[in-house]
Amino acid sequence: MQKTSINPLSQSAQVDTNSVQPFPNSQKIYVQGSKADIKVPMREISLAETPTASGNEYNPPVTVYDTSGPYTDPTISIDIRKGLANIRSTWLERRQDTEQLTTLSSQFSLQRLANAELQAMRFGLSRTPRKAKSGQNVTQMHYARKGIITDEMEFVAIRENLKLQQQLEAGVYNNQHAGQSFGASIPKQITPEFVRQEIARGRAIIPANINHVELEPMIIGRNFLVKINGNIGNSALGSSIEEEVAKLTWGIRWGADTIMDLSTGKYIHETREWIIRNSPVPIGTVPIYQALEKVDGIAEDLTWELFRDTLIEQAEQGVDYFTIHAGLRLHHIPLTAKRLTGIVSRGGSIMAKWCLAHHQENFLYTHFKDICEIMKAYDVSFSLGDGLRPGSVADANDAAQFGELETLGELTKIAWQHDIQTIIEGPGHIPMHLIKENMDKQLACCDEAPFYTLGPLVTDIAPAYDHITSGIGAAMIGWYGCAMLCYVTPKEHLGLPNKEDVKTGIITYKIAAHAADLAKGHPGAQIRDNALSKARFEFRWQDQFNLALDPDTARSFHDETLPKDSAKVAHFCSMCGPKFCSMKITKEVRDYAAKQETIAVTEIEQKMQEKSAEFKQQGGKIYSEI
Amino acid sequence: MQKTSINPLSQSAQVDTNSVQPFPNSQKIYVQGSKADIKVPMREISLAETPTASGNEYNPPVTVYDTSGPYTDPTISIDIRKGLANIRSTWLERRQDTEQLTTLSSQFSLQRLANAELQAMRFGLSRTPRKAKSGQNVTQMHYARKGIITDEMEFVAIRENLKLQQQLEAGVYNNQHAGQSFGASIPKQITPEFVRQEIARGRAIIPANINHVELEPMIIGRNFLVKINGNIGNSALGSSIEEEVAKLTWGIRWGADTIMDLSTGKYIHETREWIIRNSPVPIGTVPIYQALEKVDGIAEDLTWELFRDTLIEQAEQGVDYFTIHAGLRLHHIPLTAKRLTGIVSRGGSIMAKWCLAHHQENFLYTHFKDICEIMKAYDVSFSLGDGLRPGSVADANDAAQFGELETLGELTKIAWQHDIQTIIEGPGHIPMHLIKENMDKQLACCDEAPFYTLGPLVTDIAPAYDHITSGIGAAMIGWYGCAMLCYVTPKEHLGLPNKEDVKTGIITYKIAAHAADLAKGHPGAQIRDNALSKARFEFRWQDQFNLALDPDTARSFHDETLPKDSAKVAHFCSMCGPKFCSMKITKEVRDYAAKQETIAVTEIEQKMQEKSAEFKQQGGKIYSEI
Repeated sequence: MQKTSINPLSQSAQVDTNSVQPFPNSQKIYVQGSKADIKVPMREISLAETPTASGNEYNPPVTVYDTSGPYTDPTISIDIRKGLANIRSTWLERRQDTEQLTTLSSQFSLQRLANAELQAMRFGLSRTPRKAKSGQNVTQMHYARKGIITDEMEFVAIRENLKLQQQLEAGVYNNQHAGQSFGASIPKQITPEFVRQEIARGRAIIPANINHVELEPMIIGRNFLVKINGNIGNSALGSSIEEEVAKLTWGIRWGADTIMDLSTGKYIHETREWIIRNSPVPIGTVPIYQALEKVDGIAEDLTWELFRDTLIEQAEQGVDYFTIHAGLRLHHIPLTAKRLTGIVSRGGSIMAKWCLAHHQENFLYTHFKDICEIMKAYDVSFSLGDGLRPGSVADANDAAQFGELETLGELTKIAWQHDIQTIIEGPGHIPMHLIKENMDKQLACCDEAPFYTLGPLVTDIAPAYDHITSGIGAAMIGWYGCAMLCYVTPKEHLGLPNKEDVKTGIITYKIAAHAADLAKGHPGAQIRDNALSKARFEFRWQDQFNLALDPDTARSFHDETLPKDSAKVAHFCSMCGPKFCSMKITKEVRDYAAKQETIAVTEIEQKMQEKSAEFKQQGGKIYSEI
Repeated sequence: MQKTSINPLSQSAQVDTNSVQPFPNSQKIYVQGSKADIKVPMREISLAETPTASGNEYNPPVTVYDTSGPYTDPTISIDIRKGLANIRSTWLERRQDTEQLTTLSSQFSLQRLANAELQAMRFGLSRTPRKAKSGQNVTQMHYARKGIITDEMEFVAIRENLKLQQQLEAGVYNNQHAGQSFGASIPKQITPEFVRQEIARGRAIIPANINHVELEPMIIGRNFLVKINGNIGNSALGSSIEEEVAKLTWGIRWGADTIMDLSTGKYIHETREWIIRNSPVPIGTVPIYQALEKVDGIAEDLTWELFRDTLIEQAEQGVDYFTIHAGLRLHHIPLTAKRLTGIVSRGGSIMAKWCLAHHQENFLYTHFKDICEIMKAYDVSFSLGDGLRPGSVADANDAAQFGELETLGELTKIAWQHDIQTIIEGPGHIPMHLIKENMDKQLACCDEAPFYTLGPLVTDIAPAYDHITSGIGAAMIGWYGCAMLCYVTPKEHLGLPNKEDVKTGIITYKIAAHAADLAKGHPGAQIRDNALSKARFEFRWQDQFNLALDPDTARSFHDETLPKDSAKVAHFCSMCGPKFCSMKITKEVRDYAAKQETIAVTEIEQKMQEKSAEFKQQGGKIYSEI
């Protein structure tokens, strides 16, 4: 408990130095959109040439999706006390449907602002919140349904394409398997109009609160690249504001597409402000956590009014999506009594306790329409929480879980009637053979609203390795149609993840998401695999490291046994030693063939074909007499 | 290169102390078979009681599969210079079809024995090899087809059952999902007769060389628990004999069902002897690696005679299965020319080079019948190698790979004609959506001979995390019907794994194999998951750690943030803090209900039902007016 302390250094807080190192042999590039203020960031990895007998062969650079924001742009100076640059205000102003408020709308926010003791840790934000003008709906879904392509939509269209056409023209190796997408509708090229259609249809969302002006927009939907979320957040037991910002910058460095701030400690409000102001990715929260803090942890004392104020507080800070456990209804609760592990969702257990204590229906359900009114005034997206997700494989796909999912389907349609962007949260612990049933039921109940799952963990028996137990399930459900995968770290079930755990969780989930993209046949997804495998096969060690999801660890593992620089150009590694490398031998096989005169090569091939034909004539069997 | 050295301490070599620690709260038990010398080892994990309002509730111990051999039996004193106890000689003698030779049959073995310089590192084995009497076939398959249930078959039947009946009678929580097994035929209880039938049918093997008398038999087949293999072995660049034995004992501690010794260094022969004499699990090798050493790495210089002597050398040491790359035929080689990563199998590239150099068909293919003669005299099992496995997702499921697989199917049938136990090796790198096609094709081509795959890796872009990229594919192919999963460590593609990498690889693959067992609905597979989840839900922290695949890491992760002993009984962890734990809240929800008088409880339920009915009457919608 001793660790519960504000960071006394907030006013001298510095960015985590590891988060601002440029990636090796990589360049931050920006693709220009149709307007001067639309600049879409990507990372371009340059590769060495391949030496061949007939001269060096060019290997075009590989463009990869970049979630790291300005932190990896060496031309931008970072000061986390000032936050990131405001890149969206001009977009919002062009739409003319929002206004800058003169003060904060939340009572709690005003109290915090008035509290002089918090001055030392408060982020120094000078602007007031933005809100929809009276009667306006400012959600991306609302625009999409009116046929408007927003700047955010154009931004994500460019972002999703990753310069595919230019990469192909430059000659990247893009032979790719066709994939199997289980009914997804992924186009060859992502256009702004396609983005608009998908958002209008409810099949994708761009979480982009109008108060999160530092945001580089991204899209979540089954017809786009599979995304991953990383959770951060302090608890009553640990970590400072500076540490939480460092977890954010560290998480997005390794590929987190969104970050959820799940803080439950004393200074949630202040911590969140620091996080959002320094985040180029959407920030999600679970407002009920903070609401519970406000009633000293007594779930029974929660009220709609207090919760409402919390939503407004967070919406005006710029939270991009809210987890709302509105699908857990009174009549679902008895369905959990016989479960092996009851209710394991924090939000779910809070609401269940409230419902039981008051003998009343969940107030998030009865006030759902009121919540919609708040969401549409700031364009906060719903992430409909699965309060009854299974906490063990034993409880997977049971009546409680599916009962709630059906309610989430109803709520999705209500949210859509209000043009609120909506995603659906999913489990949890599910054995492999039940994952597809889960995905299919979600698609059916929620009419293809994006699914956002935690794992799922495919077994319960490996605490300390639950990034792996869940990475297996995550890859599979991503393939089946899940749009975003919420990471699980090695500390799941055991403790609060540290920075190293965050990285391990993120890399594991990048693997799962990318494996899903490959299996779905997402256009261009295999370019990076092909480039890395080509580098590997040609012993371009540096390129192999640089193309890896984690170049640092790949390099350091290699250097453990072969630390010298000369080994980076060696045609072997310590697994097999110099004489024995199979890739080297294959190269020799090819060289052997290449060294022959053309006529001789033809002769060899001819002999091979003869030999092959001869064996085939024998029915391909040598012991046909047996 | 400096590390290439024999261990000067071989004669004072000691067992790795970490490998001989008993597991926490665990007891080594032996289930008695029908004869006095059949004692089947298992591990029994004792659990604490659950405190309830009406007194303590008993939690029966959980029995788990135990590959760790005598090393974790505190009553046995271990001396790796003497090797493990001979437990199979009496079984072999009862069969009366083998004889103890007076000397070694391999020329190479005799030369090594005569070399005084090797004395210091030589394992001090005094007995001579055993071989089938002239004209006898001593394979398990041969006995099975004659209707004989061997002691090995009875041993594995008991082992696979894990005391399921007794566990159920003791009251373990065994509610389990039915699973989906894609045509597997898993019985509710494994009987010796079922084992015999499966071996006779070729659908399972017991790798058990008659010279590996230290072996605790195990079975590989799709209707049994999914198994995993761990690779060890030095290369020209690293590691001593003592280190290799330590990797063995460390690997089986964490769950390796078999170990492959892939050594390619100078003292392969001597290292192997130490490994086999100290191994309670089957040992596999790739004899072509050693054969190549004997011709100084010049593949063209390989001959059948030299290879034959190598097979006999290793068979008489007790190697349980041989990887033989006999399926790579001359006419397959041109199919690899257009591949992104050519031939990446070491054995495959050696044989391809040999074939090209001589313009001849692979001698392993042309001499396949001769190889069978050796296998049946010692009961060495075939592991038919996939020399053309894809080295990148780009090359997955191509004509080269499937062409070789078809040949492996032919060879399987030839091996079966000789009653040789046979498994088939598989890839490699395969995107998720092509894994099932691979498995199905193997089942069809090889008539359900057990499949044994390396991963597969589902993406190429994560060097340093290839235990994870491959763990995903391994879990899936295990579910689809693969019988044994060859582990991949974090060092794959980068360097020689150390002990920590071996452990990480093994645990990852135990997860994959177990996830597959759950998904297939293997009887009793969910007992451990249920017990761990129950412990987790009841805050029995020690039980949660002890039931984990890796109790040490689970405990240490927990202790990073909550090191005090009092936290081990705390009803929270550092993820959520004391007030906020969802499991704690759920417990409060249950307690709340339990505290009411019976009448009141009924009343609550009635109210809930009324409320539920009321909402259902409204069509379950609250905003039906919209």
